[in-house]
Amino acid sequence: MISKNTVKFIKSLQIKKYRQKENVFLVEGAKNVLELVKSDFKINQLFLTETFLEENRHLIPDSNFPINVVKEGDLTKVSTFKTNNAALAIVEMRHEESLSFDKDEYGIVLDDIRDPGNLGTILRVADWYGIRKIICSETSADRYNPKVIAASMGSFTRVRISYQILGNYLPGLSIPVLGAYLEGENVHQFKFPKSGLILIGNESAGISQPLEKMVAHKLNIPRFGGAESLNAGVATAVICDNLRRTVTV
Amino acid sequence: MISKNTVKFIKSLQIKKYRQKENVFLVEGAKNVLELVKSDFKINQLFLTETFLEENRHLIPDSNFPINVVKEGDLTKVSTFKTNNAALAIVEMRHEESLSFDKDEYGIVLDDIRDPGNLGTILRVADWYGIRKIICSETSADRYNPKVIAASMGSFTRVRISYQILGNYLPGLSIPVLGAYLEGENVHQFKFPKSGLILIGNESAGISQPLEKMVAHKLNIPRFGGAESLNAGVATAVICDNLRRTVTV
Repeated sequence: MISKNTVKFIKSLQIKKYRQKENVFLVEGAKNVLELVKSDFKINQLFLTETFLEENRHLIPDSNFPINVVKEGDLTKVSTFKTNNAALAIVEMRHEESLSFDKDEYGIVLDDIRDPGNLGTILRVADWYGIRKIICSETSADRYNPKVIAASMGSFTRVRISYQILGNYLPGLSIPVLGAYLEGENVHQFKFPKSGLILIGNESAGISQPLEKMVAHKLNIPRFGGAESLNAGVATAVICDNLRRTVTV
Repeated sequence: MISKNTVKFIKSLQIKKYRQKENVFLVEGAKNVLELVKSDFKINQLFLTETFLEENRHLIPDSNFPINVVKEGDLTKVSTFKTNNAALAIVEMRHEESLSFDKDEYGIVLDDIRDPGNLGTILRVADWYGIRKIICSETSADRYNPKVIAASMGSFTRVRISYQILGNYLPGLSIPVLGAYLEGENVHQFKFPKSGLILIGNESAGISQPLEKMVAHKLNIPRFGGAESLNAGVATAVICDNLRRTVTV
């Protein structure tokens, strides 16, 4: 059983206002919780089913936080998932300061990515391609939204995120900005520099006009059929894959 | 106003059982409805806001189906979207027969892709890369699920889909199956044949064991960081992008 007050508290954390007030967020599901316990995030409480605990006891570190063993039905009730037969954690937020970039490093910059599923997918893509830092416009989805965490499949533990006013932030960096556009240099032929920031625009509006003058290269993913555009997470992955053909980590 | 019975009817079409009974499905949102009216799908009814109708009257063909002008609030009430300020259509299903492949053609095969958002994204990716046919296992998401249509961003009108028992269907085709695996030939170096079927496995379990012996080449997307896997839509796009570097449409 999870007490009425705890149910109410956990459910409140689905909303940004309450996450910010309490300075904690939710991590749900087996994969994400198993990545969480390996990371340096500070866990306040774990809620686990008996089956999950038995199967994964050796992976869960000795801790000074409470581990609550609960029924699957009770876990599902407080979860944003349709069913949760594994785990949920309440975790302390980590506030990133301004991130800096080395002379041979790549980062991703997100201009107003609104959909939490897209942000989570982009975290997973960045992590796959060895990109460890993401700069988000302040209008982008909240990194602690449960849908971001879910879609990241554990990558939220490895990729650092900083929210910035991009128009002020980008000019201060001395590495080139490569923008994803529907026209521009063919990404199959583009010679990627040894460092760069891959800039991805909003799901419908693309990269906002004021940022265009900060873009050193407009990159285009060649199109062979009828679709007008690609999903933001997909476009990020295709550009990263082209990058990693020549510039490896 | 939308009558009570019509509200009930439209809402019932969110569920597969009722779609199959009525042989119709829903298309929602500006982009999807504008692609729909250009296609050869048979529309039974359109529900549009006045603003959408005024802006797009020239794009909507003369028709023998009813066009209902409704308030945004009423449209949102029957829509699966959080808000729908544009359009919704009731459309007749198209049942694809078995699809055949030319000697110089590529197709995508989906083994148990369960998430409708993933299927919709894969339709959009296929359409971008000029792949016009998708074979789905019978356990895959329903092509007429509103989330598939939404995520496809109009590509559902251009990409043909057939549901098949893959274990029976694949051996009858004479073009090589290229499977997406977490190990195998590096897709950056792989020499794509002039025709092929790109096989994508289930979101958690990958390609099912019995299909493995039908795979001519196991393809691997090189990994540079900590993520264990890529999302199914993302993996499809990266493989198609590598394919189209050498084998164009």
